Amino acid sequence: MARFSRRAMLKLSAVSAFAAATASSAKVETTPARTSPQAAATPAADPLPSWNDGATKQSIIKFVEKVAKEGSPDFVPVDERIATFDNDGTLWAEKPLYVQLLFALDRVKTIARYHPEWQAEEPFASLLKGNVKAALGGGEPAIMKIVMATHSGMTTEEFNLIVKDWIATARNPAKKQLFTDMVYVPMLELLAYMRSNDFKTFIVSGGGSDFMRPWTERIYGIPPDQVFGSSGKTKFEMRDGIPVLMRLPEINFIDDKGGKPVGIHQFIGRRPIAAFGNSDGDLQMLQWTTVGQSPRFGLIVHHTDAEREWAYDRHSDVGRLDKALDAAAVNKWTVVDMKNDWNKVFAFES
Amino acid sequence: MARFSRRAMLKLSAVSAFAAATASSAKVETTPARTSPQAAATPAADPLPSWNDGATKQSIIKFVEKVAKEGSPDFVPVDERIATFDNDGTLWAEKPLYVQLLFALDRVKTIARYHPEWQAEEPFASLLKGNVKAALGGGEPAIMKIVMATHSGMTTEEFNLIVKDWIATARNPAKKQLFTDMVYVPMLELLAYMRSNDFKTFIVSGGGSDFMRPWTERIYGIPPDQVFGSSGKTKFEMRDGIPVLMRLPEINFIDDKGGKPVGIHQFIGRRPIAAFGNSDGDLQMLQWTTVGQSPRFGLIVHHTDAEREWAYDRHSDVGRLDKALDAAAVNKWTVVDMKNDWNKVFAFES
Repeated sequence: MARFSRRAMLKLSAVSAFAAATASSAKVETTPARTSPQAAATPAADPLPSWNDGATKQSIIKFVEKVAKEGSPDFVPVDERIATFDNDGTLWAEKPLYVQLLFALDRVKTIARYHPEWQAEEPFASLLKGNVKAALGGGEPAIMKIVMATHSGMTTEEFNLIVKDWIATARNPAKKQLFTDMVYVPMLELLAYMRSNDFKTFIVSGGGSDFMRPWTERIYGIPPDQVFGSSGKTKFEMRDGIPVLMRLPEINFIDDKGGKPVGIHQFIGRRPIAAFGNSDGDLQMLQWTTVGQSPRFGLIVHHTDAEREWAYDRHSDVGRLDKALDAAAVNKWTVVDMKNDWNKVFAFES
Repeated sequence: MARFSRRAMLKLSAVSAFAAATASSAKVETTPARTSPQAAATPAADPLPSWNDGATKQSIIKFVEKVAKEGSPDFVPVDERIATFDNDGTLWAEKPLYVQLLFALDRVKTIARYHPEWQAEEPFASLLKGNVKAALGGGEPAIMKIVMATHSGMTTEEFNLIVKDWIATARNPAKKQLFTDMVYVPMLELLAYMRSNDFKTFIVSGGGSDFMRPWTERIYGIPPDQVFGSSGKTKFEMRDGIPVLMRLPEINFIDDKGGKPVGIHQFIGRRPIAAFGNSDGDLQMLQWTTVGQSPRFGLIVHHTDAEREWAYDRHSDVGRLDKALDAAAVNKWTVVDMKNDWNKVFAFES
């Protein structure tokens, strides 16, 4: 499920950008998914080669070394080395719109032939006429209808296949790259670096668990049981002697804002010692992780690179970073200046 | 949270047994928790020394060898080797009553001094007068009141400490042993054996996640993020600048019967290839795990040992094994005959 609260705040500016872009995303690409760049992410000498030298990179290395080095006064036992990562905007790009929403919009077109009634029913009618702006203009209820129509009514295994098929070929409408190639190389390096220091890495996303799990192991090296996010309800049924889980059109859990610590408690059952995010949706996760106890580490990816990626923060409707940016200063969280701290953003740049 | 549906079915026979037993459980024991017997559970020669030779033991070894041996036609890659275990009655004893319910009843007595109103309020009034039978006679609503009164209204960290303190000294009212010593040695061996063959072992319990996680790593070697069960809702709050999760008096999820496959999907995101249970509450988990695909393994612990443990199945109110016993025959699940298949049940026997 999507973060409806944030997505509902989409303003016309974002919608217009998307409307222009969505035409190209509708093209069916047949290129097979490329191998993830993560294999190349752990050179022997510098574990973080895509990070420029400076205070940001040093803060990461200093933290990892002090908790992982036996005999260090800040040593943390292996089983407590839990690190949580937001996904959208922290591990992969979230512009011009959240990938899962682009998936849902694509999916409406794909299954429209089974829904003749959509020709006369909003927001589907506008969407099918190519008027995304009008379709999303209906705000949260419209987005909810689109998400429910595309994320429920099938078994969990069917949905898994639908996502796998889509993500294998779908491309970012602005950059024309596979979404799975729009993961941040410096963050892949960071994941690998932390795991090489016996951290268990988790994804804690506002996006849907079942939208991520079909590809997160291949792309990030994170197995499904260490990936969670928002979810819809499912129901166990026996169908002709075969057990299935049916996806119901009901929200189960929204893993955003205050929901992130709730989800961390529910799924991990242990407080992380490091958390990584990029928006106000991650504020409570960073507070829960870092406030009150040490050694703890919080990091915010600040999107400052309009050329290689996007530049946005306090006034963006997707991935707004406002309160969490203020909190970062107060709590001494590391703030990544994407433009200056990363010498590479995406693998396809080179 | 408890499995209210099952617990509500407690009949007077079970309640009477408990009533006789609960007086002794109220004694505060100061013996420190003993080291778990699991350290001794992995000898080099026979990985399952507490299992008598025979068809049951052979079925386990045959399954593990065929999925773990490289080159085997049934070889399963490491990341798909997921095994799920029920807790109550599968890994530790559940008689005369579920341990979590005994905890809740103890807890009512401990905190009664903060609740003068309980002297006149059922089911607390009966309970405080020592009349457990009358207290639990109120069925599901009464049990729900007891669970909510004892499991909510504090932070998650406070509850964690409460459980840790209690489990360190609380003893089974019938056997007078620490609850954490009433884990089944053969099952500890099985957990270790499967992990030594690169299985990831999960607990999928009808009992509460937060009641298990404070001790499951020490006793079973299973970290909190691989332990889940039923749960109550929690809420993120900042209190004097400190982030806390408050436990609310509301059910979040009941991980029993059809809820087990739902929970497995939600928490693990991958279908297990082996599942272990002991009651009708585990039926759907075993179906979800084993039906339709191979190689899969299902196992039911059948409580047949009235001397060393307890003997019960189709007519028991705690841990009823009826439909799942029939399903085991149809689906060729392994059924452990505790009396004849295990040469040792508990470590304290020797």
